[in-house]
Amino acid sequence: MTTARRDTYTPDSLLAVAVTVFNERGYDGTSMEHLSKAAGISKSSIYHHVSGKEELLRRAVSRALDELFGILDEDHARGGRAVERLEYVTRRMVEVLTAELPYVTLLLRVRGNTATERWALERRREFDHQVARLLREAAADGEVRADVEVRLATRLVFGMINSIVEWYRPDGRDAGDGRLADTVVRLVFAGLRGEG
Amino acid sequence: MTTARRDTYTPDSLLAVAVTVFNERGYDGTSMEHLSKAAGISKSSIYHHVSGKEELLRRAVSRALDELFGILDEDHARGGRAVERLEYVTRRMVEVLTAELPYVTLLLRVRGNTATERWALERRREFDHQVARLLREAAADGEVRADVEVRLATRLVFGMINSIVEWYRPDGRDAGDGRLADTVVRLVFAGLRGEG
Repeated sequence: MTTARRDTYTPDSLLAVAVTVFNERGYDGTSMEHLSKAAGISKSSIYHHVSGKEELLRRAVSRALDELFGILDEDHARGGRAVERLEYVTRRMVEVLTAELPYVTLLLRVRGNTATERWALERRREFDHQVARLLREAAADGEVRADVEVRLATRLVFGMINSIVEWYRPDGRDAGDGRLADTVVRLVFAGLRGEG
Repeated sequence: MTTARRDTYTPDSLLAVAVTVFNERGYDGTSMEHLSKAAGISKSSIYHHVSGKEELLRRAVSRALDELFGILDEDHARGGRAVERLEYVTRRMVEVLTAELPYVTLLLRVRGNTATERWALERRREFDHQVARLLREAAADGEVRADVEVRLATRLVFGMINSIVEWYRPDGRDAGDGRLADTVVRLVFAGLRGEG
């Protein structure tokens, strides 16, 4: 252990290292040995912080899920017309995704091999359902095109938003100015076509 | 080899087996042994058809790429206003993706570790650029919202379309009736919002 650095990790900073490794190697492909190497501390030091890699996964996806579900409790997601609430939630989903990029990336890659992964998938589905419910309400208000099916539209909108993790870089040219969230909201709610 | 079935494969039917295995295990995670087991014929029988797994990958992604580039040569993609051509290409992309689901899925998962993968990535980028060019033309015609940036819109629209491979099942309720392509076109070009 002479090469190991002193363990100065907090629960959050150790989690950040673990999430990076999970995203690089896949959760299944990550061993405690990989985590120990990436963190530069011994496995027993890691066990001092957490019970194992599944606890790290649970904490990481919980962080993403808490942020996402938190959106639904915000004032603008709770009051007003359904279509406005849906627009607000769409914008905030993009903001959470970019602000919590590694955590949401990990959440979106969860496959369901362990109890924690199955729990995360279940929570994701519940979030999707709540957003679909908003879309259904907006449709019932006559504020969504009648020729678009709610379940299909929900999948496609989530598909667009979730695909952002594949290319977004926090330090890139799309970062920070809210243009990405604006563009998603415009595409989803008003479509591409201009006056022409 | 007593348990192996007689080799009655055609190049296409062997390719279909290989693509299924590549999509399940990942291309990197697939050995000739895996392909031999899945096909139920010996490795030497496979080598009778192809030089190895990289040739199978190249044939599989070529099939997806040929179908995608083929769209751009179709009459409706070549004549008329740019925004109409773009709408046509969008619809046909969804149709190709669902008709050639395993091949397009494999193409979208290519990462770039081998020469064939890097070539496939390069061809994908070229296709993306051609679609982006159409979007730029439509914007120059004043038929695309001025407050949406072309590069970002292209990424988001591709993100929506490509996400379909994650959940679409050829025998499911979304199959066959063109509703999926209609919905994508409506969302992308007109947005969700109805008259309200």
